Amino acid sequence: MTFAATILTLYPEMFPGPLGVSLAGRALERGDWTCDAVQIRDFANDRHRTVDDTPAGGGAGMVLKADVLAAALDSVPAGRPVLAMTPRGRPITQARIRALSAGPGVTILCGRFEGFDERLFDARPQIEQISLGDIVLSGGEPAALAILDACIRLLPGVMGAASSGAEESFEEGLLEYPQYTRPAEWEGRTIPEVLRSGDHAKIAAWRKQRSEDDTRLRRPDLWERYSDARARPASGARRKD
Amino acid sequence: MTFAATILTLYPEMFPGPLGVSLAGRALERGDWTCDAVQIRDFANDRHRTVDDTPAGGGAGMVLKADVLAAALDSVPAGRPVLAMTPRGRPITQARIRALSAGPGVTILCGRFEGFDERLFDARPQIEQISLGDIVLSGGEPAALAILDACIRLLPGVMGAASSGAEESFEEGLLEYPQYTRPAEWEGRTIPEVLRSGDHAKIAAWRKQRSEDDTRLRRPDLWERYSDARARPASGARRKD
Repeated sequence: MTFAATILTLYPEMFPGPLGVSLAGRALERGDWTCDAVQIRDFANDRHRTVDDTPAGGGAGMVLKADVLAAALDSVPAGRPVLAMTPRGRPITQARIRALSAGPGVTILCGRFEGFDERLFDARPQIEQISLGDIVLSGGEPAALAILDACIRLLPGVMGAASSGAEESFEEGLLEYPQYTRPAEWEGRTIPEVLRSGDHAKIAAWRKQRSEDDTRLRRPDLWERYSDARARPASGARRKD
Repeated sequence: MTFAATILTLYPEMFPGPLGVSLAGRALERGDWTCDAVQIRDFANDRHRTVDDTPAGGGAGMVLKADVLAAALDSVPAGRPVLAMTPRGRPITQARIRALSAGPGVTILCGRFEGFDERLFDARPQIEQISLGDIVLSGGEPAALAILDACIRLLPGVMGAASSGAEESFEEGLLEYPQYTRPAEWEGRTIPEVLRSGDHAKIAAWRKQRSEDDTRLRRPDLWERYSDARARPASGARRKD
């Protein structure tokens, strides 16, 4: 099955962009996914091809028009999740990425300027408002690229046998353990002894401990959720995701 | 002052990529920022130009070598913050973006595969490990593009008079209020009456209320921090950032 990505944007030339090379680029060539960037401006309904207007109630910047956005969205085949990238959205999670990558594809709506006319979301309730993280971008495009990259690497066959994607940050609600490779000694620093022991059980225990320690130290928010979930095993570790 | 961005990557052809068009692209042409993508592989020290090796202790994937990464990093002028993009890092915040954009520039180290040999971070303590959000990418490049985009739009003169960047999501610890624009009625939906009242005080109060309501509903984590900060005005609203 091919994962169909459609991006609604004022800058279709940004796609596939960085996703045209490396892992995602090879997957695109193989046909594991398709990339269709749709110019929102083509759905403007006046001769100036207007896509934005001043904010009702005043204020700086321009707001993308609901009628134009809706027309662009209505042109895309239904049956796929629709995300609108906005800092007002819910933060994306790896669990949501995994669900998206297991589906038929995704349609991503990229804002610019001061954002979308809010009526769009009332009138098209299938749109999920999603945030990449707590930063403000000049538009949704860099966020869309990141979301697509995260989905594509999980498509069957894309990472190949090199990595299953199963043992990595966030999959168990913890950060991944630290990694080491050759040389055995570098600038006077050695690889932890246990990793050279060949004792698989000890290595697994050390890695789990480091995952837990680093999560507690670096991400108290994740650690709290993880600890809560362990304290209530009957309700399932993924409950709070 | 020019904001100097250096990206250490195995895919320098990804830069400036989407940052070469629109707002960031025009700023690049004007010389508001510079984009220097450095090929990590050029710092490999064997004739096969090896940049990675298998994980110590076993496991899938490949780990980027500390010696090669350190050599690449040591080649970049010092005096600028150095970020390594990794899901093991601390989540980026808009406050950190604002601080970066006010400085001389940033050096961003992009991982691939299973990540970096951890000794790199012990040996080069100036590196900040930073995460874009709780998703796993195929490499740090899409995250670097997002971080740079967020910095560039805040550079003096880049957004121009169109928007100050001061009244937007996260700046006050709240999500931004919803926006509306023409037409006044669309698909039977009108713009909220207050926004058409011309009463600036009432509009400001309505927007503040919507910011608070939406933050409480959509981002209980932000809301908790915001409420805590308000309850202790003496300690400053930005304390927990």
